[in-house]
Amino acid sequence: MSRPKRNEQSILERIEQGGAWRPRTGPQSLRLGIGDDAALFIPARGCELVLTADWFLEGTHFRRSKHPADSVGWKCLARAVSDVAAMGGVPRCFLLSLALPESLTGTWLDQFLAGLRRASQKLNCPLAGGDTTKSARVLINVTVVGEVQSGVAKRRTGARPGDSIYVSGTLGEAEAGWQTLQASKQKIPKTDRRLQKHYYPAPRISLGRWLVTERNVSSMMDLSDGLSADLLRLCTASGVGARIELSQLPLSSIARTSKERSWALHGGEDYELLFTAPQNQSEKFLGFPGTPLTRIGTITRTRRLLVVHRDGSTEKLVPRGWDPFRARK
Amino acid sequence: MSRPKRNEQSILERIEQGGAWRPRTGPQSLRLGIGDDAALFIPARGCELVLTADWFLEGTHFRRSKHPADSVGWKCLARAVSDVAAMGGVPRCFLLSLALPESLTGTWLDQFLAGLRRASQKLNCPLAGGDTTKSARVLINVTVVGEVQSGVAKRRTGARPGDSIYVSGTLGEAEAGWQTLQASKQKIPKTDRRLQKHYYPAPRISLGRWLVTERNVSSMMDLSDGLSADLLRLCTASGVGARIELSQLPLSSIARTSKERSWALHGGEDYELLFTAPQNQSEKFLGFPGTPLTRIGTITRTRRLLVVHRDGSTEKLVPRGWDPFRARK
Repeated sequence: MSRPKRNEQSILERIEQGGAWRPRTGPQSLRLGIGDDAALFIPARGCELVLTADWFLEGTHFRRSKHPADSVGWKCLARAVSDVAAMGGVPRCFLLSLALPESLTGTWLDQFLAGLRRASQKLNCPLAGGDTTKSARVLINVTVVGEVQSGVAKRRTGARPGDSIYVSGTLGEAEAGWQTLQASKQKIPKTDRRLQKHYYPAPRISLGRWLVTERNVSSMMDLSDGLSADLLRLCTASGVGARIELSQLPLSSIARTSKERSWALHGGEDYELLFTAPQNQSEKFLGFPGTPLTRIGTITRTRRLLVVHRDGSTEKLVPRGWDPFRARK
Repeated sequence: MSRPKRNEQSILERIEQGGAWRPRTGPQSLRLGIGDDAALFIPARGCELVLTADWFLEGTHFRRSKHPADSVGWKCLARAVSDVAAMGGVPRCFLLSLALPESLTGTWLDQFLAGLRRASQKLNCPLAGGDTTKSARVLINVTVVGEVQSGVAKRRTGARPGDSIYVSGTLGEAEAGWQTLQASKQKIPKTDRRLQKHYYPAPRISLGRWLVTERNVSSMMDLSDGLSADLLRLCTASGVGARIELSQLPLSSIARTSKERSWALHGGEDYELLFTAPQNQSEKFLGFPGTPLTRIGTITRTRRLLVVHRDGSTEKLVPRGWDPFRARK
């Protein structure tokens, strides 16, 4: 929050209300937060920094008429933290750049900050600074600074032919929630069970932290734009292909129709981890406490993405993930 | 640039064209740049990180009808780097979050990137990552990661009664440029001498780096919203007041009328450094090679801002700096 301005000042005061943004546990790395030209952060010895920035824009990434402000606050941080988890890093602090209309500096801002503050506490990632200004629609940009032990961060580039492909949790639930929300004529309360994964995604920090200690994990990324789109990126980066077993995809209990099941393949915003490891390591990777991991296919030498249907027939997997330069699917 | 998408991919390719974004000199701190979930950065031993994020929005901070795309690219990075210089830090890398209409992904984007790339080279601050998406108007957010030796960063909080107040360079020139541009019915070429400081501000990195080694410098910040507004922030943070000698303000050679001279007091975007130090240190602080430094006043115990006119009369200094929640002055 560099350079407080007059009315901007009152927004900063709201942001600072309700106590300091301190990490619950771990190093108190933030030596100086909001209020000067820049923040000061003490990096841990033997660590590299994991840096990521993410847009979260009204009309593109959320709709003010549909999404509770509390969810907007939670999600803008959670999705950026997911990129840090995807490298095996631990979030340490974030910068919030917020632009909004003057009419939203009351209740909307309070609820937004409540969701953001809960995410900050839960993800142990305090606010370090940022920038605020005025805008006709809500614009959010979040930068997260994380740390990972030097030299061990997982990338998208190491998948090898024969490696097994794993995902965490279940797939398609966030998209199911979004479809429900889109179809609904009114707002859906933030407590609705069907919307939890869409409103309040939980980045896989602990899992990423564990996987980064496993040398055998050959590549890793998070699932933000849908398995088909993200797997293509991982395969392209690694110079390989993949075969996905449709019958193995871990579906959410919400998915019942075949259309709903297709969201496991193409739906966005799961924020689960996708990773690869040699085939003989399967037992190890199915036993992480608290988070189900599922083997969903195999990396191939041929640079194609294939899905294997229940009857054994195969089909080319055409990515249908989200591209901001096309319409929302 | 996490998560490249289809058409987003072509923008990323444009960003990566023309060679890698490497620092000219100094540590090669960036271990992994664009193309994965996040960037990896190796912090130097004995340093703290200086973190800042800045909005640069079409219609708020620049006008597409007035500002050359090349200047937009330069300025979005230079102004964020200025916040790092204001703490005495050295920029190490930046994250670019860019949202733009599809119609601007041709020539406009190329010129924007040309300006950005020159700033990146000049300021020795390579691109580490970020995010791109679509938007009806151009939205830019830049995060800069800098470094400063542990424990020495200068803040706004240390000014003491009796300290002299200094500024670097001249004041009001960027505002003079902006006023000229606003009054002009057509675009003004990027080479126009009157617009150089408005189009292509040069953050005071070397000076900040020198001042941070001087224990006697009691407080420091950069001038982004005008001397009157920024001095108030420094004084508020330090719990002091100030007397500014109008006759001492270093005017740009462009300022001739009294209105033009008033921009030295209230005009924005100088990106000069404002700092304080005990009175007996004056000689030292007037001798930095290459950058004129000027003593413009004194810190007072009384928490008021005063200006002293040429005839010795004093007047309350009312900040008129820029506030995004009011109209552009």
